[in-house]
Amino acid sequence: MAPVRPAVDPPSRGACRMNAADLPTRTEHDLIGDREVPADAYWGIHTLRAQENFPISGVTIGDSPFLVEALACVKQAAALTNHQLGLLDDERFAAIERACEEVRAGDLHDQFVVDVMQGGAGTSTNMNANEVIANRALEILGRAKGDYAFLHPNEHVNLSQSTNDVYPTAVKIAIIEATHSLLGAMEVLQGSFAAKAEEFRGVLKMGRTQLQDAVPMTLGQEFGTYAVMLGEDRSRLSEAVAMLHEINLGATAIGTQLNAPLGYVPVACEHLAALTGLPLESAVDLIEATQDCGSFVQLSGTLKRVAVKIGKICNDLRLLSSGPRAGLNEINLPAVQAGSSIMPGKVNPVIPEVVNQVAFQVIGMDVTVTMAAEAGQLQLNAFEPVICYSLSVGTYRLREAMLVLAERCVDGITANEELLRAEVESSIGLVTALNPFIGYAAATEVAKEALATGRGVAELVLERGLLPPEQLRAILQPEVLANLAPRP
Amino acid sequence: MAPVRPAVDPPSRGACRMNAADLPTRTEHDLIGDREVPADAYWGIHTLRAQENFPISGVTIGDSPFLVEALACVKQAAALTNHQLGLLDDERFAAIERACEEVRAGDLHDQFVVDVMQGGAGTSTNMNANEVIANRALEILGRAKGDYAFLHPNEHVNLSQSTNDVYPTAVKIAIIEATHSLLGAMEVLQGSFAAKAEEFRGVLKMGRTQLQDAVPMTLGQEFGTYAVMLGEDRSRLSEAVAMLHEINLGATAIGTQLNAPLGYVPVACEHLAALTGLPLESAVDLIEATQDCGSFVQLSGTLKRVAVKIGKICNDLRLLSSGPRAGLNEINLPAVQAGSSIMPGKVNPVIPEVVNQVAFQVIGMDVTVTMAAEAGQLQLNAFEPVICYSLSVGTYRLREAMLVLAERCVDGITANEELLRAEVESSIGLVTALNPFIGYAAATEVAKEALATGRGVAELVLERGLLPPEQLRAILQPEVLANLAPRP
Amino acid sequence: MAPVRPAVDPPSRGACRMNAADLPTRTEHDLIGDREVPADAYWGIHTLRAQENFPISGVTIGDSPFLVEALACVKQAAALTNHQLGLLDDERFAAIERACEEVRAGDLHDQFVVDVMQGGAGTSTNMNANEVIANRALEILGRAKGDYAFLHPNEHVNLSQSTNDVYPTAVKIAIIEATHSLLGAMEVLQGSFAAKAEEFRGVLKMGRTQLQDAVPMTLGQEFGTYAVMLGEDRSRLSEAVAMLHEINLGATAIGTQLNAPLGYVPVACEHLAALTGLPLESAVDLIEATQDCGSFVQLSGTLKRVAVKIGKICNDLRLLSSGPRAGLNEINLPAVQAGSSIMPGKVNPVIPEVVNQVAFQVIGMDVTVTMAAEAGQLQLNAFEPVICYSLSVGTYRLREAMLVLAERCVDGITANEELLRAEVESSIGLVTALNPFIGYAAATEVAKEALATGRGVAELVLERGLLPPEQLRAILQPEVLANLAPRP
Amino acid sequence: MAPVRPAVDPPSRGACRMNAADLPTRTEHDLIGDREVPADAYWGIHTLRAQENFPISGVTIGDSPFLVEALACVKQAAALTNHQLGLLDDERFAAIERACEEVRAGDLHDQFVVDVMQGGAGTSTNMNANEVIANRALEILGRAKGDYAFLHPNEHVNLSQSTNDVYPTAVKIAIIEATHSLLGAMEVLQGSFAAKAEEFRGVLKMGRTQLQDAVPMTLGQEFGTYAVMLGEDRSRLSEAVAMLHEINLGATAIGTQLNAPLGYVPVACEHLAALTGLPLESAVDLIEATQDCGSFVQLSGTLKRVAVKIGKICNDLRLLSSGPRAGLNEINLPAVQAGSSIMPGKVNPVIPEVVNQVAFQVIGMDVTVTMAAEAGQLQLNAFEPVICYSLSVGTYRLREAMLVLAERCVDGITANEELLRAEVESSIGLVTALNPFIGYAAATEVAKEALATGRGVAELVLERGLLPPEQLRAILQPEVLANLAPRP
Repeated sequence: MAPVRPAVDPPSRGACRMNAADLPTRTEHDLIGDREVPADAYWGIHTLRAQENFPISGVTIGDSPFLVEALACVKQAAALTNHQLGLLDDERFAAIERACEEVRAGDLHDQFVVDVMQGGAGTSTNMNANEVIANRALEILGRAKGDYAFLHPNEHVNLSQSTNDVYPTAVKIAIIEATHSLLGAMEVLQGSFAAKAEEFRGVLKMGRTQLQDAVPMTLGQEFGTYAVMLGEDRSRLSEAVAMLHEINLGATAIGTQLNAPLGYVPVACEHLAALTGLPLESAVDLIEATQDCGSFVQLSGTLKRVAVKIGKICNDLRLLSSGPRAGLNEINLPAVQAGSSIMPGKVNPVIPEVVNQVAFQVIGMDVTVTMAAEAGQLQLNAFEPVICYSLSVGTYRLREAMLVLAERCVDGITANEELLRAEVESSIGLVTALNPFIGYAAATEVAKEALATGRGVAELVLERGLLPPEQLRAILQPEVLANLAPRP
Repeated sequence: MAPVRPAVDPPSRGACRMNAADLPTRTEHDLIGDREVPADAYWGIHTLRAQENFPISGVTIGDSPFLVEALACVKQAAALTNHQLGLLDDERFAAIERACEEVRAGDLHDQFVVDVMQGGAGTSTNMNANEVIANRALEILGRAKGDYAFLHPNEHVNLSQSTNDVYPTAVKIAIIEATHSLLGAMEVLQGSFAAKAEEFRGVLKMGRTQLQDAVPMTLGQEFGTYAVMLGEDRSRLSEAVAMLHEINLGATAIGTQLNAPLGYVPVACEHLAALTGLPLESAVDLIEATQDCGSFVQLSGTLKRVAVKIGKICNDLRLLSSGPRAGLNEINLPAVQAGSSIMPGKVNPVIPEVVNQVAFQVIGMDVTVTMAAEAGQLQLNAFEPVICYSLSVGTYRLREAMLVLAERCVDGITANEELLRAEVESSIGLVTALNPFIGYAAATEVAKEALATGRGVAELVLERGLLPPEQLRAILQPEVLANLAPRP
Repeated sequence: MAPVRPAVDPPSRGACRMNAADLPTRTEHDLIGDREVPADAYWGIHTLRAQENFPISGVTIGDSPFLVEALACVKQAAALTNHQLGLLDDERFAAIERACEEVRAGDLHDQFVVDVMQGGAGTSTNMNANEVIANRALEILGRAKGDYAFLHPNEHVNLSQSTNDVYPTAVKIAIIEATHSLLGAMEVLQGSFAAKAEEFRGVLKMGRTQLQDAVPMTLGQEFGTYAVMLGEDRSRLSEAVAMLHEINLGATAIGTQLNAPLGYVPVACEHLAALTGLPLESAVDLIEATQDCGSFVQLSGTLKRVAVKIGKICNDLRLLSSGPRAGLNEINLPAVQAGSSIMPGKVNPVIPEVVNQVAFQVIGMDVTVTMAAEAGQLQLNAFEPVICYSLSVGTYRLREAMLVLAERCVDGITANEELLRAEVESSIGLVTALNPFIGYAAATEVAKEALATGRGVAELVLERGLLPPEQLRAILQPEVLANLAPRP
Repeated sequence: MAPVRPAVDPPSRGACRMNAADLPTRTEHDLIGDREVPADAYWGIHTLRAQENFPISGVTIGDSPFLVEALACVKQAAALTNHQLGLLDDERFAAIERACEEVRAGDLHDQFVVDVMQGGAGTSTNMNANEVIANRALEILGRAKGDYAFLHPNEHVNLSQSTNDVYPTAVKIAIIEATHSLLGAMEVLQGSFAAKAEEFRGVLKMGRTQLQDAVPMTLGQEFGTYAVMLGEDRSRLSEAVAMLHEINLGATAIGTQLNAPLGYVPVACEHLAALTGLPLESAVDLIEATQDCGSFVQLSGTLKRVAVKIGKICNDLRLLSSGPRAGLNEINLPAVQAGSSIMPGKVNPVIPEVVNQVAFQVIGMDVTVTMAAEAGQLQLNAFEPVICYSLSVGTYRLREAMLVLAERCVDGITANEELLRAEVESSIGLVTALNPFIGYAAATEVAKEALATGRGVAELVLERGLLPPEQLRAILQPEVLANLAPRP
């Protein structure tokens, strides 16, 4: 096998996207020296260096539209505030604002080329945004890209800002949007389970504890449980994501607001809230807010909770549909693809299986987020990029998993009603329901004989004349056994 | 080395606590057969078998007073309800109630001998409680222990109950109490940090991002941050523990309330709320509540958040106190024990170090809780014992760690004010504050010369005549640099 | 509920074990000042301070006999070496050696009172050992405890040593012993599975993939798999524990051997190897060895692998024994205790359940060990105590779990052979085996009809005359289907 | 903000890659029914359904060249074996073999369109391979794509195989190749550290334990440690990856080799070993091997160990380069990009920071792998796809991180030698080295005065006349202090 370079999340070591020798370039400068940048690139030298420094995952921030759009919103809010406070003139402001709106509209996503995995606490992401917006603004103003003497990525686009307040603020907005999207998917899935709960409300079955036969319930109750779980998870997730509304815009480098003008913090927050439509608020202690990752850890913990629950549900679905002959065979998942080629007719629970795997990933990512948060030092956490990436991927995949589970699995589930009823009728667990009528001692005798002979409890009760047939039938009504109706 | 058996959490395989051949015994019976139980033991055959089956950790439920007392509260609430609904006569009720109160007072903790690590979803814990209360009640009634024909552990003490509603309810109450205890410790530590923040409010120092010198702040701000963090964590933990107030008492085996009398659920909940003084509420969907571990996962995730934050704080304390000669040496932790024998005079940050280790344990336990919750199947989670144990241990240790950190470390911290001020004065980061006064270009020139020569920024600014000494002094005032006062 | 202090792993804040006002004491001194120590205590002032500083878990190092004994071996090896190199005179050497042997014999375990959860990288554990051995040696020499002018805990017992080489060396020896003990338990369990594999070698059943019926196999093959897994895990664990044989004794503070005499390292290692009977070797790079936790991480990862496998096996056992009427019901686990009081006759898989929970703990502890190892800084890892504690507890509990699983579950498992055979006969998966004889097309037709009608494959094949009865019977022989014998 | 769909790992729900209405199609059939497939697609109906079923991550198996090539190797080995055993005729065999070789050459990677996140235990990946190879083989034979009556994806390409042996075998080969690639990168980084160790061999500095000043060493020793760590990790990783050489090809569905011809297993293994150049071996127990994920868990645990160590090294590099004025400032990392826009001249340790984040991901993925392995049930683990994906991504990213760390950070590190030497000279830790010459008592007096006055140990020793200047200088020689030369 040839030593071909692997391409899962293909990195681009050395081979930066720009350097065919004959392409026109412009020269840009930073503290380290001069570099040639492709003439038509909106990004500049800082972005170029970041591309070279971080050839890690091959996934760019442009692959995260929510983040790119959130960055543009933050830059626009800052420009509005700087303009309002008299720090930015009309001409430059107007150009910057239009550039921001174009980014928000999705016109320049391909210019956000920095790898999502990056050092520098988000500096390269912020620099990428500053450069793209500056060069697009220059273009709007009829000037050449790179004419930073007139409009500068740092001096004008980044005015009154620091990566350390811009980046976390943008990340929060992006994660809020992603979570809302997940919440919508969860609502869909909850609806699917609720519909099945209604459909199966009269289907009696055996409930189980510790995988052992316990007492009767209905399949509707079982599916209703899943709907309730999803509803609770939606509430918890909504609470967790609400914590992200607290932002530190205007805190600048370490939260002391150094070099942000007086009044900047509240005005910028107000503008950003208006642009995003979110109830954003400035943190009370900006120093704390600048170094703290608590809200991300909380959200990650809640996503993990969601993953645990949906994983448990999928475990149940796979178990209940096991068989068809040598399994529980209580429900049938819709066949969405052929199973094994070697075993004709085999259909596998592939949708729950993929959801389980997404859940394992989200749980693993929670460990990543936890360690990244714990590793923050003094006035800043340098590891927010991996926190952002983990939360984004986890949220997106959970959303896809929820939708697929609803549409390609739950909605098509059917029940094997006869088998379910037969299991209840043959179950020894029925004895428990008869306790109040025939007494614990007699019940125990019946249970013993049932276990030893394999015969049914009802049959034995009738044979022993412990209850008249009509009463026995009344007691064993599905609605009574599952406590949906009062006992006779 | 002799193959001595290890005794960390010493298990007791085979060698059960009772069986010196000549001790008097009584005979008890269960489905499996007869066994001799020590005559003076309040526990019975079910507890005996559980001791033999689970020689795993050597930690007994009696080592968890919160859990034992919560179990007694639940049993008392059930007895009150059964009595009120006419299922339990006055005599037996009075004896059971008095036995429960004795357990709550701590008189019988040594009778709760089952290992905290157990299969059976808590059945053995519930059985242990039933047996101890039944036998103590029999004794109160002047009868012999084991006279179950008169008062039975299951028929009377466990009346209208199932392990599957009793155990989770008791666990929740125990964890609530433990968490309240932790919250108190966090308040103590928050106070310690707040006092230091006040004490150090005028101590100027360099803030750092990514471990690199950034811009000035005060040591008071730095310690104030820790107080804010603890305050936020207290809020989040209070919210998480509030979820545990939702209980499933009366749900019985799988949540269908089979064999619990009509009206039992609300009355039992009311009694239990009164006994515990907690705002308990019955879950709306008892089937869901019986199988769901969501509130435990949520609490565990929040404990993990607390661990992450306190771990980060301890990392900072160890870093800031590094040295004394070849480290940051900004603060001094109080010496609480001698360091190395081989290195005279060495003092180590032993208190933050032990807190860090507790944090690592809590984070690991969150994975344990997560996996246990995910492994629940169908109508019950059989793995609540390890969830209960993990949350208990994590909560207790975090509490001890918080108190030790407050009392033996934070309260005694002192600052090396001169060194801190000297660092600010020698820092190149001061340039950032001078930007608005001398301009970015001049500031950059000054920064470059400072880096190259090792000279101070202020010195260079004065030498170059960029600012008059009075104005420079005014700008470099601690309160201004740390943004505690308006710029001149 | 009274705010009683919880006692799971009961801590002892403030209330140190010694201070009834009227007990006789002796005065000891350290860098911080003077303190009274109980006159009859073998431990001294350093141990006293550590007790006060670390009231975290309530578990003492005395609860870990393997560790206490390993410490004594290390101290004895050091004394032998110091004596041999002329640094320790005959009289003191003889007393120290005898004291060490008494500790190794278990006579002084109750004097090792420091909490297992401690800061200081094990210094307090080392100090505790030095003090106990010194005072016992003084007693042997007919002198008073505390007469350190004659024989000093640090100057004589700790001679040529540092906590940073003594503690990791002792921890490694203790973990090696604990792991050997676990390996023995795994061998027992492997034997139990192998015996069942032999017992069930002729029991035909359906194999399953993704919980769906697949193709036939024998129950013996299924149980044989578990024996093979345990055998492989034993091999991997043996390899991982072998890494711990590399020690850094003689490295002293940071690995540069400062203040250890020339020749100390190889001689001390040789003595320790002889005392422990283990093939210990000095690390080639002692500086690396002093800061490195790689071998602990490797061992923890391997324990996690063992936990994953035994967890999977228990999941299978619980699944295969589910029922009895509404589950797979393929095997019967022995009843070791009564199940639910509310559900008469219910027997639960409590032994596999407790093993599953131990597995969750070991997996969580691996995260703890991982974080503790990652947090090491520069020349030392300060967090080895929590690594030691986690590996000890994990190893001990896994051992107990393995033994309980073997003795109280696997050895008593029986098979429901008729049901298993009936499942194979009714299975549609049989079609796969008939492919080579009746062709894929005919097989598919048979499968379809079987699915639609619920009839058996064999019956349909005979009805359609696709194979003569004798040949069909030959093909469907258990040994053939399970590939134990060549196809006819 | 517009509710644009997020695109990190962009999924493709519904919007399958094929369905512009006017594109030519061919009709394919499976158990569920008929579907139109793009006429020019090499993949077929099974792949189409999988695309629709798994719109989860947007990453396709075609993005993992190692996996695609490994699949082609396995298919080629199977074809060679089937041909040799007389089950496949010359014409079909030749076409299949040529198609496999084209896939291995990378010509058809864009046809492997199934998402890496998939249910079905890899069935869709296997089906994708079968279909692509079948249709390319048909094309080679001059036939139309989809002419399965002549050459069928399952009947010919998948002959004698099952997903359950093909997929794990291919995954193992792919992971082996990826790990070899990582091992190469580790060797590069080890070389970088070794070169620095040589360069800094004479640079004396203070060693630290628990972040407190300890005793002297050289910077060369410090960097040498990192080289040793990487060397050990390479050894452990090589051992772990060697476990993957054990494959189960020929096991078919559950390991009983049902429908694989006699002799298939050894011949297929031999062919595959020859094609890959790897020392592959058939597992002794194929049933165990088919369900077991132990070798993946072991590898993941070892990758975690590598992540822990490289993370620790990066933590150290960031700490040692902290400053420049208010930090340790011992070493300088090369500036690879500008730091903060708001803080001129700031340079951050961005390369170690990104490596730390990769380490956090790998550690998180280990939890994912662990849970996926633990969740395997009975004869198969359905969750190998997420195991494969996690190990692939973790391996690739670690490799990139190692290379970037070597080339863009370690190779350019310089030392601040004067500051390092000054720290040693001013250190109180020097006292430890003087113990054997001036005695512990005198050393303690010197240490106390040094601490109190801030003066140097050497200066005080000379002032007190404890040692003549020449001897003191001799003792304090770098080589002596760092134990590189014998003491005078």
